[in-house]
Amino acid sequence: MTDPIDRALDGIKFDADGLIPAIAQQHDTGEVLMMAWMSPESVRITLAEGRACYWSRSRQALWRKGETSGQVQRLKELRLDCDGDALLVFVEQEGVACHTGRRSCFFHAWRDRQWTVIADALVAPETLYPQEKP
Amino acid sequence: MTDPIDRALDGIKFDADGLIPAIAQQHDTGEVLMMAWMSPESVRITLAEGRACYWSRSRQALWRKGETSGQVQRLKELRLDCDGDALLVFVEQEGVACHTGRRSCFFHAWRDRQWTVIADALVAPETLYPQEKP
Repeated sequence: MTDPIDRALDGIKFDADGLIPAIAQQHDTGEVLMMAWMSPESVRITLAEGRACYWSRSRQALWRKGETSGQVQRLKELRLDCDGDALLVFVEQEGVACHTGRRSCFFHAWRDRQWTVIADALVAPETLYPQEKP
Repeated sequence: MTDPIDRALDGIKFDADGLIPAIAQQHDTGEVLMMAWMSPESVRITLAEGRACYWSRSRQALWRKGETSGQVQRLKELRLDCDGDALLVFVEQEGVACHTGRRSCFFHAWRDRQWTVIADALVAPETLYPQEKP
């Protein structure tokens, strides 16, 4: 009998590095929180544990979002695109998503011909990430 | 005098292939429509022309979204994430985003232990893409 998560993985096309881009979106407000990468193992953990787990390319390690900061992303639904090469992760974000203390990582907007910071930090970043960084 | 778009590009970290992931989101509903890739030149065109232009990795060519299908994405705002390595493209999507004729490319949801199609095609795909494919 095939493990259901193996079937989930069978539908996903990982890239040459064995990764797939994963977009985290707050399930009820629609806010796009961040974009990160998942390995097969992080997809497996995400589905098995019901919380987003990414692959940190800088640390080359599994990254259970919020494991040190408490910024856990509870999985609401995992979606896959038409080509099978991008994931959309509906989550309930606890606290803020960004390591700068902002709710979303996408806080630079191109306005008036410059990158403009459009969101304030809601928490002090140094309190969030003593160890965990993307 | 620096071209403002050069300044925009200066803030963006392109990957080893010279590309950056770009998430297209319908600006008013928050629906995530698709994920694709942008090159410096496609970012330049997106900002200069006010419509999303991607880089098609399969065709190795610039891809003005909707150039053959009419599924144009009018740019509302371009956003950049904290690390400068992912773009969020707020757009007004004309028609559907997906080459299958669905509004969003993310129409597979992991439900009941299988990838489940959760959206119907709104237009027949063969009418959309005589030539254009991602």
